[in-house]
Amino acid sequence: MSYGLIGKLTAVPGERETLLAILLEAATAMEREPTCTAYRVNVSLDDESIVVYEVWESIEAHQQSLSLETTQTLIGKARPILANIERLAVFEPRDGH
Amino acid sequence: MSYGLIGKLTAVPGERETLLAILLEAATAMEREPTCTAYRVNVSLDDESIVVYEVWESIEAHQQSLSLETTQTLIGKARPILANIERLAVFEPRDGH
Repeated sequence: MSYGLIGKLTAVPGERETLLAILLEAATAMEREPTCTAYRVNVSLDDESIVVYEVWESIEAHQQSLSLETTQTLIGKARPILANIERLAVFEPRDGH
Repeated sequence: MSYGLIGKLTAVPGERETLLAILLEAATAMEREPTCTAYRVNVSLDDESIVVYEVWESIEAHQQSLSLETTQTLIGKARPILANIERLAVFEPRDGH
C-alpha cells in the first residue's frame, strides 16, 4: 500500500528562501530514490510556509528515507532555521490518481 | 505561474466510498484537461476525509475548470453527500518538483 503525507514547514523570519532551497535539494535527492513516487515542493499563497507533498511506495519506504545520509544532512541544515512543522495530512493515494 | 490547492472533503456518514468514486471520476476527467497537471485523490489515514491535491497551469485555468459541464455534473452528484469541505492549502508549485 503506498503512503503519502503533506507537511507544512515554516522558517524563522527571513529564512524562507534558504528553507526553500534546502527542500528543493531534498526533492532532487528523493526523486532519485526508487521508492519515492512524488516529492513536490510548493510555496504557500496563504502564509509564509512551504507545503511538501510526498508519496512513497510504503510507510516503511518513507521511514527508511528519514535515515538516509542525504536526508540527515538536509535535516541538519534545516533544523536551525525551522520555526514550525505541521503535518497537514497522512494518506493512502489511489494509484493512477 | 502555476497554481495548486489541497482540499479535504468529508462525506456524510456511510457515503465515503460514493464520494471517493465521484472524486476518482473527477480525476479522470481533469487529467484530460490540458491545463491540469495533477489531480490526485487520496484517502486520509487521519480521519474519514478524502484529500485532493490539484495543480493547474494558472489560477484562471483552475477557475475555468469549475464551470466545465463535467465539473458541474460531479459537483451536483457530490453536494448531497458532502458534510464538509476544507481548503488545507493554496500554493505556487515549484516546477520540476
